[in-house]
Amino acid sequence: MSLLVVGSVAFDTIKTAGGTAEEVLGGSATYCAYAASFFTPTPVRLVSPVGEDMPPEHLAELRGHNIDTTGVRIIPGGKTFRWVGRYTDDFLERTTEDVQLNVFGEYDTTLPAEYADSEYVFLANGAPEAQRAVLEQLPNRKFALLDTMNHWITGSADALADVLKQVDGLLLNDEEARLLTGQANLLTAARRIAKMGPRIVVIKKGEHGAILVVDGKPCALHAWMTETVVDPTGAGDCFGGALIGTIAGRDDASLASIKAGVVYGTVVASFCIEDFSIGGLRPLANGDIDRRREEFLDMIGWHE
Amino acid sequence: MSLLVVGSVAFDTIKTAGGTAEEVLGGSATYCAYAASFFTPTPVRLVSPVGEDMPPEHLAELRGHNIDTTGVRIIPGGKTFRWVGRYTDDFLERTTEDVQLNVFGEYDTTLPAEYADSEYVFLANGAPEAQRAVLEQLPNRKFALLDTMNHWITGSADALADVLKQVDGLLLNDEEARLLTGQANLLTAARRIAKMGPRIVVIKKGEHGAILVVDGKPCALHAWMTETVVDPTGAGDCFGGALIGTIAGRDDASLASIKAGVVYGTVVASFCIEDFSIGGLRPLANGDIDRRREEFLDMIGWHE
Repeated sequence: MSLLVVGSVAFDTIKTAGGTAEEVLGGSATYCAYAASFFTPTPVRLVSPVGEDMPPEHLAELRGHNIDTTGVRIIPGGKTFRWVGRYTDDFLERTTEDVQLNVFGEYDTTLPAEYADSEYVFLANGAPEAQRAVLEQLPNRKFALLDTMNHWITGSADALADVLKQVDGLLLNDEEARLLTGQANLLTAARRIAKMGPRIVVIKKGEHGAILVVDGKPCALHAWMTETVVDPTGAGDCFGGALIGTIAGRDDASLASIKAGVVYGTVVASFCIEDFSIGGLRPLANGDIDRRREEFLDMIGWHE
Repeated sequence: MSLLVVGSVAFDTIKTAGGTAEEVLGGSATYCAYAASFFTPTPVRLVSPVGEDMPPEHLAELRGHNIDTTGVRIIPGGKTFRWVGRYTDDFLERTTEDVQLNVFGEYDTTLPAEYADSEYVFLANGAPEAQRAVLEQLPNRKFALLDTMNHWITGSADALADVLKQVDGLLLNDEEARLLTGQANLLTAARRIAKMGPRIVVIKKGEHGAILVVDGKPCALHAWMTETVVDPTGAGDCFGGALIGTIAGRDDASLASIKAGVVYGTVVASFCIEDFSIGGLRPLANGDIDRRREEFLDMIGWHE
């Protein structure tokens, strides 16, 4: 079993009603790999460019959590990707106040040679052309999950359509699904996307949960309900990471495995939002995840 | 077992992208009683004022569906409540184009004497003062469920607070829950409302489902997913009707019974939206409801 996660490692500055976190470790691939690493027997392979300003302690911490950072390339003279975001007091909306792509803007997609045998791959949000270039270096891949965003749906529609034909699953949020398909009804949207290629379509709805279409079968999951929200950043990436981590860890992409992964995804995301950066994940043992999973299944269980 | 439903019987004119329905049978109590009547061994007692313009066939149809219309009072010289609404093409929003309260505006809450022994009561959306006046005529009541709306939260806050202390459950939508409590987090809102009196708080979220707090326990339910939406009018009332119908039919307001009722509520609401007026409910047998219930439990089931 080998799982590859490709995306951003970043410094985030997060502004909320409860406080501000300055230049904390963030990035889609960071969250995704950290979440996946709870579920895989071997280290998760993390691929991302960072600048010389990335403190070695951050990468050491990731290595200490079942993550292989061989693929984290320190670009000489470069600066790490930075994002500044502000949440509304109710956390229901956020605005981007600043983005500096830095080294993530000149993204060299060449993988380390020792990653070429990767079987499972998560392509976090990024340019579809770069996502495709990664796939082309993975001849042994069994399963690829793709994340995308408004920016690429609007600006790189053809390249996105092309990469969608080559992946097994797509994760996106409700707004993005409507933008991609022109359909307001999310089940219609999910089915349209499935016709574009992926056998698995997951539409994330934040506090409302997620809907899935897997091999034509619709499934719906409410989110974990909590009053403890410190910072929602990274929740979607944790969801995706725990999902592919479960699939890779079981070496099984059946419906049952996907459903188990989506539940773990919800649970890990629920811990993520309880603190800034990876602070909500850091203290977790698998026992904590399993306990909340039981509580969550009880919360959303309706069989008599 | 005796179940009383008090609210409006109305003529609705519904405008959608797919077509318009002119002056069809509607009203909160109509939908609620019809939905409840699938689940109760004895006829559901329906209380509402109507005008002389109410065709006898409508009431006859309700009587043919396990509904007791003794409490439907025809007001001499009066006209029936009318509502005109328009949905956006995606059904996610609606606007009221016209309301004529007519006989519903001069609401005499005196119940027929033979209804005074009612044990279960659903108070559909209406003035809190009128809702309280109904409760005061029901000395044997075991369980009361209340629905309300923005209008009363804003305009009759004290009367609403008063009636909330006297009921077992409150149904309202997410926007109303936020308005009532000033809390954006729906779990926080539900818990605040529970502190105002009711042991059961159900926050309806339309296509996203519902969240509940029952005796302090949070539960979350995703909605039935469908691409077949003709007219969402009445879905919330059908949800409430099937919920109280299940509780009354079982003569049991335990958590298990409430959870069963919420599932039936979702299922009956899912049929309701497939046609205008009660057209989606008319052809149903209990077997149809049970079949979709199984399909729904499979759609939202996540235990491995």
